Amino acid sequence: MNRRGAQQYVVARPLYSEESFAQDHEKVYRPRKTMLDHVKQYFTCDAKRAKAACLSLLPVVGWMKMYRLKEWLLSDLVSGVSTGLVAVLQGLAYCLLASLPPWYGLFSAFFPVIVYFFLGTSRHISVGPFPVLCLMIGSVVTRLVPDEGSPMNITGFAGLTRDEQRVLVASSVSFLAGLMQLAMGVMQVGFVVVYLSDTLVSGFTTAAAIHILVSQLKFVLGLPVPGLSGPLSLIYTLEIIFRDIASTNVCDVVISLVIMGVVFAVKELNDRFRSKLPVPVPIEVIMTVVACGVSYAFDFKTRYGIEVVGHIPQGYEAPMAPNLHVFQETAVEAFPMAIVGFAVAFSVAKFYSVKHDYTIDGNQELIAFGASNIFGASFKSFAASTALSRTAVQESTGGKTQVAGLLSALVVMIFTLAIGFLLEPLPKSVLGAVVIVNLKAMLMQFREVPYLWRRDKPDCVVWVGTCLASVLLGLDLGLAAGLGVELLSVVLRAQFPRCSQLANVPGTDVYRDRKDYLDISEPEGVKIFRIPSPIFFANIEFFRTKLVEAVGFNPLRVLRKRNKALRMIRKLLKKGDLQWTSKGFRNSSCGPVPEDKSALEALEDLDRPTDFQDLPTRIDWSAALPAYIDAPRVALHSLVLDFAAVSFLDMSALKGLKAMLKDLIRVEVEIYIAACDPYILEKLHDCCFFDDEVQPSMFFLTVHDAVLHVLEKHPQAAEKSCAHDKVNTTVTVHLPEGGLRSRDRSAAGPETRF
Amino acid sequence: MNRRGAQQYVVARPLYSEESFAQDHEKVYRPRKTMLDHVKQYFTCDAKRAKAACLSLLPVVGWMKMYRLKEWLLSDLVSGVSTGLVAVLQGLAYCLLASLPPWYGLFSAFFPVIVYFFLGTSRHISVGPFPVLCLMIGSVVTRLVPDEGSPMNITGFAGLTRDEQRVLVASSVSFLAGLMQLAMGVMQVGFVVVYLSDTLVSGFTTAAAIHILVSQLKFVLGLPVPGLSGPLSLIYTLEIIFRDIASTNVCDVVISLVIMGVVFAVKELNDRFRSKLPVPVPIEVIMTVVACGVSYAFDFKTRYGIEVVGHIPQGYEAPMAPNLHVFQETAVEAFPMAIVGFAVAFSVAKFYSVKHDYTIDGNQELIAFGASNIFGASFKSFAASTALSRTAVQESTGGKTQVAGLLSALVVMIFTLAIGFLLEPLPKSVLGAVVIVNLKAMLMQFREVPYLWRRDKPDCVVWVGTCLASVLLGLDLGLAAGLGVELLSVVLRAQFPRCSQLANVPGTDVYRDRKDYLDISEPEGVKIFRIPSPIFFANIEFFRTKLVEAVGFNPLRVLRKRNKALRMIRKLLKKGDLQWTSKGFRNSSCGPVPEDKSALEALEDLDRPTDFQDLPTRIDWSAALPAYIDAPRVALHSLVLDFAAVSFLDMSALKGLKAMLKDLIRVEVEIYIAACDPYILEKLHDCCFFDDEVQPSMFFLTVHDAVLHVLEKHPQAAEKSCAHDKVNTTVTVHLPEGGLRSRDRSAAGPETRF
Repeated sequence: MNRRGAQQYVVARPLYSEESFAQDHEKVYRPRKTMLDHVKQYFTCDAKRAKAACLSLLPVVGWMKMYRLKEWLLSDLVSGVSTGLVAVLQGLAYCLLASLPPWYGLFSAFFPVIVYFFLGTSRHISVGPFPVLCLMIGSVVTRLVPDEGSPMNITGFAGLTRDEQRVLVASSVSFLAGLMQLAMGVMQVGFVVVYLSDTLVSGFTTAAAIHILVSQLKFVLGLPVPGLSGPLSLIYTLEIIFRDIASTNVCDVVISLVIMGVVFAVKELNDRFRSKLPVPVPIEVIMTVVACGVSYAFDFKTRYGIEVVGHIPQGYEAPMAPNLHVFQETAVEAFPMAIVGFAVAFSVAKFYSVKHDYTIDGNQELIAFGASNIFGASFKSFAASTALSRTAVQESTGGKTQVAGLLSALVVMIFTLAIGFLLEPLPKSVLGAVVIVNLKAMLMQFREVPYLWRRDKPDCVVWVGTCLASVLLGLDLGLAAGLGVELLSVVLRAQFPRCSQLANVPGTDVYRDRKDYLDISEPEGVKIFRIPSPIFFANIEFFRTKLVEAVGFNPLRVLRKRNKALRMIRKLLKKGDLQWTSKGFRNSSCGPVPEDKSALEALEDLDRPTDFQDLPTRIDWSAALPAYIDAPRVALHSLVLDFAAVSFLDMSALKGLKAMLKDLIRVEVEIYIAACDPYILEKLHDCCFFDDEVQPSMFFLTVHDAVLHVLEKHPQAAEKSCAHDKVNTTVTVHLPEGGLRSRDRSAAGPETRF
Repeated sequence: MNRRGAQQYVVARPLYSEESFAQDHEKVYRPRKTMLDHVKQYFTCDAKRAKAACLSLLPVVGWMKMYRLKEWLLSDLVSGVSTGLVAVLQGLAYCLLASLPPWYGLFSAFFPVIVYFFLGTSRHISVGPFPVLCLMIGSVVTRLVPDEGSPMNITGFAGLTRDEQRVLVASSVSFLAGLMQLAMGVMQVGFVVVYLSDTLVSGFTTAAAIHILVSQLKFVLGLPVPGLSGPLSLIYTLEIIFRDIASTNVCDVVISLVIMGVVFAVKELNDRFRSKLPVPVPIEVIMTVVACGVSYAFDFKTRYGIEVVGHIPQGYEAPMAPNLHVFQETAVEAFPMAIVGFAVAFSVAKFYSVKHDYTIDGNQELIAFGASNIFGASFKSFAASTALSRTAVQESTGGKTQVAGLLSALVVMIFTLAIGFLLEPLPKSVLGAVVIVNLKAMLMQFREVPYLWRRDKPDCVVWVGTCLASVLLGLDLGLAAGLGVELLSVVLRAQFPRCSQLANVPGTDVYRDRKDYLDISEPEGVKIFRIPSPIFFANIEFFRTKLVEAVGFNPLRVLRKRNKALRMIRKLLKKGDLQWTSKGFRNSSCGPVPEDKSALEALEDLDRPTDFQDLPTRIDWSAALPAYIDAPRVALHSLVLDFAAVSFLDMSALKGLKAMLKDLIRVEVEIYIAACDPYILEKLHDCCFFDDEVQPSMFFLTVHDAVLHVLEKHPQAAEKSCAHDKVNTTVTVHLPEGGLRSRDRSAAGPETRF
């Protein structure tokens, strides 16, 4: 059985229950911090902490001090100009998603960047419009100010044009989202983004890509489709598009197809020859310039009826206050925006911070984005986050710090202040086509589905659930539903675990699932039940069922039958029909046994512990009893519960577990709990889990300790186990000092075997 | 250190990694059922299964066969009549909660009972109106057909009076809820009720009690308050009541106070003398009869302007089809009704099934309630569940089977068909007062809050969250929010577990938190890190941080520095500034060290494993290196992860864990994982967790096996550990065959100590 040369080890130690271990090894008293201590510590202030806090609020001070002017400025300049051009293009394009006039996208690529420069901790992300967020803003905008019909009745809308109303809505909801981010940052709850798992984000962004695709179809096809919002709006939009598909503008379609084809092909080449190209070819910028030129030269707008970007006013507009009435109407939608905007930016920022080995601070990022959005929204920009593609441009062209971001904002400013008119002849279908091509990566995430299905079904359900819900219900409701599915998946993982009955691998202290091995031995009258997951409200019933299956009887039912039998015995003894002799009960009458009709009166009494008072002796239920006394025999005398994997318990679990243990203890099954986490044991003490019946002495260090203790107490179990199983490798021997030894048969010793 | 007479045990066994254990002990191949097998098995049909299915669909056949006519019929009769009287009273009272004319409550206490008689598996619950459900129906009714203003634009409302419209809404939504219950029953998803934990239900019903209390205030005060629905409706209702409080009808208030006082007092007495009374005094029925008589005699209606029950038409109304347009409008609200109605009835049924020792079937109960509600709604009754108080009456007065329920329905029928007019002078304030007094038990659940806070904070948060959300948002949204909080609480419990570093309790194979004990020893260069909870998306980052803290360095950063150092060494060797001698590196030039500027070009290369190709030797990072080569030393050579409590892993955890392990392996830290669940190990294999770097050979059976393996591989660790810690009780000795022994000092052997 042993391989030659295998290492062998011997452990000789006392048999430990938790109590005897605590006696032998004194625990160090470690004062625990109360909540009050934490609060005190948090609000303690000294000069050093104050300085550190100020510095962490203004990260620019920190990284500016170590700015290497000579080395970094040039790469920041190159990167800033490239990113700026992309930002202009994306600003215009993503603005279409938000259902706003295109030039407002330029504002979003300018104002937030400036604030982020001072407050942000990431050196590489390019702050500005993010398509998913733009789409979410667009859905609020079209809900409050629909394309067809009158806008919602909002104070402050009076006297504004439709576009002005929309800008008011977009900037107000951005302001609100910014406020929420700022509040979360101040409250230091940046950790909430962990709830957006990779799987959830992947499903959500895929759904967003589908939404974006559908919303851009109208530009690509040149169809006038009203923006819709709310559940199923995607279906309705598609319905309208297919209804009107006959009026497609062929010229738009041709332009889009050409742009998409070229951009797609060049991007593939960029990817393939990434190592050989110093910088990826900025094909989108090139195609936009070409399209602008061609459209201007051939006057697409009047000749083919193509929709172009149109007049871009020069200069910035006066700042304005957000509208409180809009706040009220959009509070529920601003929250997912705040979360999604931050979560995406944070995950991109984190990726680059790991790559370039610096730390970013989630809460400071929340503050930075909050302030950026509040500042930006005051100047009519809409909520900013980051676009992965633009950040990739900024980093790959050599951007070292947010100086590159600042320079990109300058480029955007030049367009706003001076040369914006150059973009006026640009067809909207070009912008739509560029947006659609950029969806490739997001849509490719569909490939994760079969991968997840093979690897981990609950994760796959989360992906599909989030994606479907986000497509059908809209992004905000979909995100909430996806979160629900995700939380449920965690519960589901722990809800139906595989319970197993363990048995001893002979000659060792190892216990494994008894169904998995042939050479495994189970002492008679002892069951070892492994609980392989935390116990809480959703699985306590499941465990109760499995445990009843494992022990082979329902303890409550047995207890009731025994109590009924006791009642009957008492009655018969009183009447003299039964007599107690030293050899057991003797039946004195042979008449019919009276039926027990008193069951109803004291049903609760049947659940009490068996009470042998006023009887001549304790009754041994496994001995022979008069035939008409129906008391089931229980073959089990001890139950060991392996708690090694129980990482937490909630109140339902405590109640359920206690009831379960009580029922078993009352039918004289000894319970042992092994390998329980010390903190859980502590919690059990704190929660008054123990009483006269359920006692802390049942806790043992390992399953082996508990089983050896049982064998010590019930020597016949060990004997029978050996005789029965014919394995004979687990031999327990009484040492002179009364201990137990379990020896591998390869290590033949002088001990007596039996 | 050892107590006298303590049991000792000795284990001698091979040192097992999972692989060597699998070699020694062959696993039995157990074919796993695929999903397809389960589906096949589920749809397999033979005569026996078909018969069992039919019987389980019609439980009445089963229990009627064993009906003990002589013994049970009398108690069923007594119980049926008592329950019937209570049902009449509750039917009228709860109907006020549903904002319907009172006599429809009599229908709800009749039709559903009949269907449940045939289909239900519980023998003791009294089916019929349930206050919380009535309130939920009431909120739908007042939303669609408000007291003030015009009803919602629903096809089918034309030509109906307001009350008829309301009845149409109530019965349609009940029909829909019934359909949902039936569908859930057929799909066998009755297990969903486990998600409604005791804590959640307690918080929810307390909130419902507050809603009920507020909704009854208008009857008790005799004020005309319109029924409101939607978020914050409770606040608005209270606002209206306090605005109009001056117009309170004093007579109503007096009647209510008298009724409440008397009923409350008698109920307390009933409780106190429960053991002495054969049957609780039916004080509500008595007071109602008295109030009816007094109201009739003194003509309260005209004399004091008191609102009375009013005309009760005799006989039943013609059945009607539900309205599909109402289905559309109320689908979202019908679902929580279906769930709450079933969950409450099921929990009550389960309580009595345990008490009387029979089994109930959750899915069959769903079918029974679904069918009851569909049938009832066709006859203008509204959704039925059970009321705890009425069921208690039915059981305590001796009800044995649903025959009692059927008889109670007969009593209700007598009122509908013949003597309903007797109730016409009953003041509504009496009904309100009776409802309010019955809220005592539900409101007393507030006492759980401090109890939960002391015992288990997350559970307390779930209670308070559910209750607050249900009070403020309304019962349907509140239930959803409560469920969210509850699921989140499970995640939270596992999200910030207490990680610990373990160390060996000398002389044993026991490992405990090293901070908890003084007499504990940690081998040098080895860390034992315990992961005390499942690993999933929400805590993988937390573990990464904790692990980096525990090992004391960031492995990725060390790897990068080493790779940078290597690059520098290569360059210097090439230039001849550095030379390799057998004693190590020798610096040949004393000039300034060239700075490494190539970092940018190949940042990704730095994350690769260190590559010693084309170098004369592997570099020993812990040996002395030229001063200008900055490569951090790592004091750690082995890391043991205790996986005993890791009960599941999700995809994020797999990815994160693998990345974490790779980083560590690349800086030459050996990783061992101990006590991993066999099913998790299987899953890791299935998910392609292993590759060239992360190998399955790192899994060991126990922490002790892994540590002994480490000591075997790094003998200096054991020596240093002993010298350093001065504990000297853990002695590892090389056995002749190359094994390791760890011996308790009390068991002095012939082995050499060192």
